[in-house]
Order: sequence, then structure tokens, then C-alpha cells
Amino acid sequence: MLIRSGTEVLTEQGFTASGIDGILKRVGVPKGSFYYYFASKEAFGRAIMEHYGAYFANKLDRHLLDTQQPPLRRIEAFVADAKAGMARHDFRRGCLVGNLGQEAVGLPDGYRQWLQETLDDWQKKLARCLEEARAAGELAQAADCDRLAEAFWIGWEGAVMRARLERSARPLDVFITTFLEGLPR
Amino acid sequence: MLIRSGTEVLTEQGFTASGIDGILKRVGVPKGSFYYYFASKEAFGRAIMEHYGAYFANKLDRHLLDTQQPPLRRIEAFVADAKAGMARHDFRRGCLVGNLGQEAVGLPDGYRQWLQETLDDWQKKLARCLEEARAAGELAQAADCDRLAEAFWIGWEGAVMRARLERSARPLDVFITTFLEGLPR
Repeated sequence: MLIRSGTEVLTEQGFTASGIDGILKRVGVPKGSFYYYFASKEAFGRAIMEHYGAYFANKLDRHLLDTQQPPLRRIEAFVADAKAGMARHDFRRGCLVGNLGQEAVGLPDGYRQWLQETLDDWQKKLARCLEEARAAGELAQAADCDRLAEAFWIGWEGAVMRARLERSARPLDVFITTFLEGLPR
Repeated sequence: MLIRSGTEVLTEQGFTASGIDGILKRVGVPKGSFYYYFASKEAFGRAIMEHYGAYFANKLDRHLLDTQQPPLRRIEAFVADAKAGMARHDFRRGCLVGNLGQEAVGLPDGYRQWLQETLDDWQKKLARCLEEARAAGELAQAADCDRLAEAFWIGWEGAVMRARLERSARPLDVFITTFLEGLPR
């Protein structure tokens, strides 16, 4: 319950601005109980990152490994799913990785490494899907799938930020349309 | 001096995490003097946004209106300039618009509107450059310059965030290479 509530608050406000008191209040948990589970806000943040990372990796796998669909369609399906998730929360919640990435300078030790490892993991998953697209003839043989996958996540975090700023799915659409159109065919 | 120091701190830490006291300490200005110039942190933030907006619009114009260069080269020149700027500050400082955009949910009234208007302004400047590229035959006649310009800024903010996270220019290179390669020719 604490991790779920913490995830909600951190995807909305980031790490620095999130207070433990507010998170406890949302779920009616006393401070003593919190410190039974977590030694500090820093340790709590780590648990939230692990939980979010596992949740997101699962979501990605569900779409990108769906062999019922051609590879590029799987990427579109992931975007549609993430878009629906953002709309469900009125575009107030962003991506934990993007939020914390923006705060990188002031984060506890080790957070930055976790963020980079998580993005690397997502990038590998997407690169494998793009390689399948290349093998299936959806992409040119010369396509640099690793770089394209990295560019996807770079643009994705920018698009999620803009979708929150505008409270609209439009930036996500602009991003994915341009990304897919720009792929080497 | 206050605006310059505030810009430095806000591009590093964002709005919420930035304290007036720390900013005053950097420049040796007493709190009373601060309140002589600015009614509140919110008003100070507005002044910083105006200053940053004017500075950035000027940088963009300097490159994008440089008729000595073909239009797409001007975009590359802007990226090279921004990259050098980030390197100069060891990739600790981001884009004020990206930092504040990430905090959108918790910002004072009117900040969100300013962020959107600023991004719109940058987008118009870039769209005009892309239209010149289209007229010069550097882009396909069917190119949707407005959408491509919007996609550029979406990706740009993501790339700046990643560059700070990795403390390296590599994400900016990955972004611009992929963006230029993906343009309809």
C-alpha cells in the first residue's frame, strides 16, 4: 500500500518535492509503521523504483513480445496502452524515470545509476523488437536498431513531459507518428 | 545578478527544490534587497522565465535565421551550440522549460501557460526554418513542417534530460542524428 501510494505521488511530483507525511496521510499509515518497513525516504524511493521498473518491464514485454502482431504494430500497441494509462490519471502522472531523471543532480547516490540501467533495459527490449521488424522486412537492412531504440526512449520521455504540461495525449501522438514515419524502410 | 543566479539554480534544480536563501547566498544579496525587487519566489520565477525565454529565442534566431547556411545546417548549428553550452556546465544544467515542465502539476498559476507559449514560439521558429528547407528542396514537398517542429522540441527536451542524467553529449547526438535521418526527403 505504501509503495503504491508512493508511486502515485512520485510520478506526479518527483522525489525532492514528495513528502513522506503526505504519502502516509493518503493511506492512513502512522510514521512508526513506515519506519518499520523503510529505513529512510531514500530507501523508500529505491523500493518504489524497483516496483515501478518491474511493472513497466512487464508492460513492455506484454506488448513487444506479442508475436500475434507484426513488430512495429507492437510498438504502437505499447504507446496506445501508455496513452490510456496517462489519460486515466488526467495526464497528471508522468513516467517515474523521466521525473527522477530531471532531478538527477540532487538525487541520492545510486539513483542515477538505477535510472540509466532501467532505460538501458527498456532500450534493449525495444531494440530486439526493431531487429524483428528488420528481419521481417518492416525496416531497411541498414537500420541501426540500437540507436533507433535509444532515440525512441529519448523522445518518449520528452513526449510524456509535454503530455503532462498540455494535459493531453496529442504530444504522444505527434511523437509516435514522427518516429514511425522516420524509420528507415 | 539575482536573475542570473536564479537561472543557474533553476536550470539545475527546477522550481520547487530551489530555495531563495541559497540563491541569495551565492551572490551575497540580503533578503531585504531581494524583496525590494521581487514580491515573492513566484514573481522571481516569472522574471527568470522571461529572461531565459528572451535569451533562448535570441540564440535560436541567431542560428535559424542565418541565411549563410542551408536551412537544415542551421538546425545542426543550433544543436552544436546548445551542446557546447551544456558541456561548459558539465551537463548539470538543463533547459528551464524542460525542468519546469516536469514539475507542471505543482507550479504556480500561469507558469504552465508560459511554458506552453514558449514552446509554441520555439516551434514556430523551427517550423519556418523547415519550410525554408522544403522550399530549397532539402525536404519532401509533403513534409508537415509544423508537426516535425513540434516533434523536434518534444525529442529535444527528452535528449537534454538524458544528457544530464548521463553527464554526456551522447543523447543529444543520438537525438539529432535520428531526427535528421528521419526527415522526409
